[in-house]
Amino acid sequence: MTRPSIDFWFEFASTYSYLTAMRIDVHAAAIGVDVRWRPFLLGPIFAGQGWSTSPFNIYPAKGRYMWRDMERQCRRAGLPLARPDPFPQNGLLAARVALVGLAGEFAGDWGPAFVRRVYKAEFGEGRNIGEESVVAELLLDVYQDPEIVIERALAPQNKALLKSETEEAMARGIFGAPSFLTEDGELFWGNDRLDEALEWAAGERGAL
Amino acid sequence: MTRPSIDFWFEFASTYSYLTAMRIDVHAAAIGVDVRWRPFLLGPIFAGQGWSTSPFNIYPAKGRYMWRDMERQCRRAGLPLARPDPFPQNGLLAARVALVGLAGEFAGDWGPAFVRRVYKAEFGEGRNIGEESVVAELLLDVYQDPEIVIERALAPQNKALLKSETEEAMARGIFGAPSFLTEDGELFWGNDRLDEALEWAAGERGAL
Repeated sequence: MTRPSIDFWFEFASTYSYLTAMRIDVHAAAIGVDVRWRPFLLGPIFAGQGWSTSPFNIYPAKGRYMWRDMERQCRRAGLPLARPDPFPQNGLLAARVALVGLAGEFAGDWGPAFVRRVYKAEFGEGRNIGEESVVAELLLDVYQDPEIVIERALAPQNKALLKSETEEAMARGIFGAPSFLTEDGELFWGNDRLDEALEWAAGERGAL
Repeated sequence: MTRPSIDFWFEFASTYSYLTAMRIDVHAAAIGVDVRWRPFLLGPIFAGQGWSTSPFNIYPAKGRYMWRDMERQCRRAGLPLARPDPFPQNGLLAARVALVGLAGEFAGDWGPAFVRRVYKAEFGEGRNIGEESVVAELLLDVYQDPEIVIERALAPQNKALLKSETEEAMARGIFGAPSFLTEDGELFWGNDRLDEALEWAAGERGAL
C-alpha cells in the first residue's frame, strides 16, 4: 500500500505560508502523509479578482490585523518575525528556483530546505528575496551552486512549468496560500487548516 | 477580583459566526471568561472597502470554498447546515432585536439564546431571517413577546444604538466576523481564533 500524499501549494509573498512551511514536514510525518511542495504565483490569480497587490495592502484594517496576528502566531510557533520591505516581496525568481529543486529533471532533495530558507530570510530576517544576490546566497546555504541552479531556473522550460503550475492551481479552485489539496481533490485553505487537511489525506475524514 | 471578559462581535449574515455562536459559551465558561455578545453590521464596513455584497459572492472561488469548508466544520461540530437563499441574508431586523435583548434598558437573559436561535434557523434550517414573521417566530421560541420586542427593536434609540455599535466596531479595527476583542484591546478574527482569544482574555498570553 502506498502512503497517502498531500499537495502543499505555497507562494513566497504569503506570510501564512511561512508558518506552514516551517512545520508541515513534522506534522505530515507524524500522521504518515507525504508532502508534495508546489510553488505557484498568486499574482495572476489576484489579478483575475481585480487586485494588483496583496489584499493586506488593499484593505488596511485587514493588513494591520494580519501583521499583529503573525506576531502572535510566530511567537506561539517559536519563529522569528521581521516585516520585509517592500511587502509583498517579488517571489518570482525564488519560486522558479524552488521549482528546479522540487520538480522536473533536476529535482533534488534540497527543495523543501531551500523553501524554508527563503521563508526564514524573508519573514524571519526581513531580507529582500526579490534580489538575485539574496537568492544566490540562500542557495549556498542549502549547498547548491547558485550559478547552475539559477540558469536552470531561468530556462524557458522551467518558466513555462511555473506558469502551468499556477494555471493548475487556479483551475483547481485555489485562491490563496497556503492551500492544501488531497489526492481525492479536497481543498483546504490556510495554515489553520493544515492538521485537518493532513487528517483528511490520512483517511481520517469521517463520513463526509 | 472580577472575572475577565471578552467582546464577541457577530453579524447575522456571517456563516462562520454561526459556528462561534453555538460554542462560545461552553468554551468561555471552561476557561473562566465572561462573554459580551455584540451584534453589528458588516454592510457599512464592507461598503467602505468598495464591496456591495458578501466577499463570498464577489469572489466565486472563495465562495465555493467557504461553503465546502462550512460543510466540513459543521460536521466536525455536530451542527446542521442548510444554505439560506438569498445569501447573504438581510440580518438588520434580527440584529436590532438581538440588541434589545443584549444591551440597553430592556436587556434580559434571553439575548444569547435568541442569537443562537437565529443562527440555527438561518444556517441550520435555511430559513429567511430577513422576514419579520420569521423573527417573530424565533422570539416566541425564546419565550419573548414578538410585538413588544419588535416595537422596541424599531425604536429610534435602538436603531441609533446598532449604528453606534457598528461605528465602534469599525473604529476598533474590525473588518469581518466573528471578531473577538479583549479588555486590553487585542483583536482576534475568525471562529478559528476563538480559543486563542479566550486564552488571551484569561491572561494566558505568554510574553507578547
